[in-house]
Amino acid sequence: MSGAAIALDAMGADHAPKPEVEGAIRAAKDLGIRVILVGREEVLRRELALHPGWESLPIEIHHASEFITMEDSAAKAVRSKRDSSMRVASRLVREGIAQGFVSAGNTGAVMATAKMVQGVVPGVERPALGGAFPTLKNPVVMLDVGANVDCTPRMLAQFAVMGEIYSRVILHCENPRVGLLSIGEEEHKGNELTRAAMVLLKTLPINFIGNIEGSDMYAGKADVIVCDGFIGNVALKVSEGLAEMIRHMLRESFEASVTRKIGYILSRSGFADFRKRVDYSEYGGAPLLGVQGVCIICHGRSNANAIRNAIRVAAEFSTGNINLQMEHGLRSCSNEKVPQPI
Amino acid sequence: MSGAAIALDAMGADHAPKPEVEGAIRAAKDLGIRVILVGREEVLRRELALHPGWESLPIEIHHASEFITMEDSAAKAVRSKRDSSMRVASRLVREGIAQGFVSAGNTGAVMATAKMVQGVVPGVERPALGGAFPTLKNPVVMLDVGANVDCTPRMLAQFAVMGEIYSRVILHCENPRVGLLSIGEEEHKGNELTRAAMVLLKTLPINFIGNIEGSDMYAGKADVIVCDGFIGNVALKVSEGLAEMIRHMLRESFEASVTRKIGYILSRSGFADFRKRVDYSEYGGAPLLGVQGVCIICHGRSNANAIRNAIRVAAEFSTGNINLQMEHGLRSCSNEKVPQPI
Repeated sequence: MSGAAIALDAMGADHAPKPEVEGAIRAAKDLGIRVILVGREEVLRRELALHPGWESLPIEIHHASEFITMEDSAAKAVRSKRDSSMRVASRLVREGIAQGFVSAGNTGAVMATAKMVQGVVPGVERPALGGAFPTLKNPVVMLDVGANVDCTPRMLAQFAVMGEIYSRVILHCENPRVGLLSIGEEEHKGNELTRAAMVLLKTLPINFIGNIEGSDMYAGKADVIVCDGFIGNVALKVSEGLAEMIRHMLRESFEASVTRKIGYILSRSGFADFRKRVDYSEYGGAPLLGVQGVCIICHGRSNANAIRNAIRVAAEFSTGNINLQMEHGLRSCSNEKVPQPI
Repeated sequence: MSGAAIALDAMGADHAPKPEVEGAIRAAKDLGIRVILVGREEVLRRELALHPGWESLPIEIHHASEFITMEDSAAKAVRSKRDSSMRVASRLVREGIAQGFVSAGNTGAVMATAKMVQGVVPGVERPALGGAFPTLKNPVVMLDVGANVDCTPRMLAQFAVMGEIYSRVILHCENPRVGLLSIGEEEHKGNELTRAAMVLLKTLPINFIGNIEGSDMYAGKADVIVCDGFIGNVALKVSEGLAEMIRHMLRESFEASVTRKIGYILSRSGFADFRKRVDYSEYGGAPLLGVQGVCIICHGRSNANAIRNAIRVAAEFSTGNINLQMEHGLRSCSNEKVPQPI
């Protein structure tokens, strides 16, 4: 993995630093990625001691005395707590000591920190959070999933360009089909924002396939799905909630009789298979696209596997020259007529 | 069922008039509801002939020479085709011959027809489509799920009042908890629209529980979920798409080995149970809240069970005095400060 070092905020996850330390060890051991664990040194040493032999892995510790909690505001994260593990990890990227920053901490705080400390790629109006998820076919990336709740058509056009590049370089999709999330396939269907964005998206040098509906999201009809951060966030969280409900109801139905229970036991490797296919932790966190360097944001509930994969994605991202491609790609939409924000 | 007659557009569903005729027969037979089938008389008689003994049921035929297709625009539906089954069925309600109108036709056309022909309840700015769906606890109603793609905060406040009454009267929820769909529980989380709506919703004489997140939708945290029609439509369609993907992946996983297949056979009554719990057809279509009389819109893919249940809901709705309650309830938010649409 060409020597990229990833700075990992080791104090971010709900159960930090356990998943971070274990995830770092797996990334270093399985993938040979250099990981800089950022956080309270004594805490990290204690956790690392549970993994004998870690000293031979490419893992370093970088001390930071503070950390951001889930309750801290994003403003607080960037203005005070200047020695937080989050901020220090981001700074390591700015200073070129690390090539990517990964955190499972407070999402708002991570975004604000990365934007301020690492800065924004030239031409990017607003960085966007990209969520990757499984479909019947290939993995799909949706953006924005929560960084920008009120978007302009121009911002959606930028998201399309950034998502297309991410899909090509990181998800290895050859000619990504970019769809605009709307409520009908026909061009005129949608709200004011999507109808205005449609006009812009059609002018871009990407494989734009028009509107796609919510029901197409998991059918693999598009490789990149563009939407504002409010709707993207709702769409992903609704999915989480529904998957949880289905799991729960299936369990209840199988526990209702002995025969069903036996059936469940016989078929449970099927369930395990299924779970693996829809397991969010395989997807390794959400990239904050459009910031300088690399920033990957993980779910607060991340397990070690999710952290490992986020480190992998950060390393791939850092060697992919994506930001330069984005800078170049965004020039192609910078001369378009800019509709007024609604 | 107190003699309410329901006018059923018998030419609307994808496989019309089959599900409509069978659904009407079930509603008449099981529930004693009077159904007026509206459509081409000869077509309907031919379909009815497949159900011997139908003449003894409270089913009538009302001839209409035309019908609206899925390709017709809403404008066309209301301006031309004046003898369409959709329009004639709606007119029967306006004329007091029927008390409710049910259609599985082109949703945009049904909404436009009902608004124009039946009219709007005094005080209602814009009728809203209410989608009912299952959760781990009680069924929930979400509105708007597609009638209004660009909403003002005031419209959301009206949806809250209409949804609350629907939940109480039709879903028999005692003190419905009304939530605003947003991207975080805290009051300040959301976009411009939801933040402005929050201010209004807090002043209403309803059990408003604040913001709820997409992940709470299926957890039964609220009985009524308020959102604009764009986001509501996306949320429901994303759910449809995800449920479909999960079904597909489970099937694949169970077919991968003989043991798993045997397990599946033993446990399939569990799956049947589960399917019944999440079956949309149990929920009987989406009411268009805020139109005079009653209008229930079904999915184009509706089966006979869905039509039967939509007829049931229409009959309950028509005897529940809901519109009068809405008119009264909406007065409570008519004196509020009206924020500008964003």
